[in-house]
Amino acid sequence: MLTRIDHIGIACFDLDATVEFYRATYGFEVFHSEVNEEQGVREAMLKINGTSDGGASYLQLLEPTREDSAVGKWLAKNGEGVHHIAFGTADVDADAAAVRDKGVRVLYDEPRRGSMDSRITFLHPKDCHGVLTELVTAAGSHVQDPQDH
Amino acid sequence: MLTRIDHIGIACFDLDATVEFYRATYGFEVFHSEVNEEQGVREAMLKINGTSDGGASYLQLLEPTREDSAVGKWLAKNGEGVHHIAFGTADVDADAAAVRDKGVRVLYDEPRRGSMDSRITFLHPKDCHGVLTELVTAAGSHVQDPQDH
Repeated sequence: MLTRIDHIGIACFDLDATVEFYRATYGFEVFHSEVNEEQGVREAMLKINGTSDGGASYLQLLEPTREDSAVGKWLAKNGEGVHHIAFGTADVDADAAAVRDKGVRVLYDEPRRGSMDSRITFLHPKDCHGVLTELVTAAGSHVQDPQDH
Repeated sequence: MLTRIDHIGIACFDLDATVEFYRATYGFEVFHSEVNEEQGVREAMLKINGTSDGGASYLQLLEPTREDSAVGKWLAKNGEGVHHIAFGTADVDADAAAVRDKGVRVLYDEPRRGSMDSRITFLHPKDCHGVLTELVTAAGSHVQDPQDH
């Protein structure tokens, strides 16, 4: 079950300048930053608020590390802006399977590593009314199904 | 001070079909719906989670009621997708003034009526790294400045 807006992914040309914009304009600070070579992005997570499921909502600022990454190609076509939205769940495997059963294309066979050691997958934007949609389970928050016990 | 992701605004061609997509795919239900004639939109708010500032985060699904509305023109150019993001604050007037002082263009001279009797304004996307950004104070949540008393 999806229980929060986990983050809004924003593609930018210059991560440092964009981080500085959010800091100077709104006072948002960097909570975490990393390079994800598999995704081809350098990223900064700005924590905005806690959520009622015990998680949090972030802005995720993304700068491509190579032009042929998904974010790099998207930026070249669209310019800076909102790249994707992400919903948080305690069980990304179960939710990915459930939406796949409903006919929504899931882009990965198995969830991959996302920010802060989360596990993530993406849904095809053409199956989601134009919105590239990520499902994410934060590290340490996976809740096993009762039948696992 | 901006204390939450208040909502993600998603533009769509057919509000009923898009509401049904979010219900059938994820189980998200309509919390509130209305027509905002000034904004030229018919909209549905889907509540996703509560937030640590006592508010909530929503998806806001937007169908234009006329082609010459801001959302109608945006849809004709971009197709369906994320139209804007909104940050919640207890004092939209103060935050709008603060960002204007920092050189960010604020689109309204005074905040206008948004969803659920909120008060809203927008920041120019070209001043926000490509992201059309809304600031919103929910109805009943305005906190007066000490100097007002």
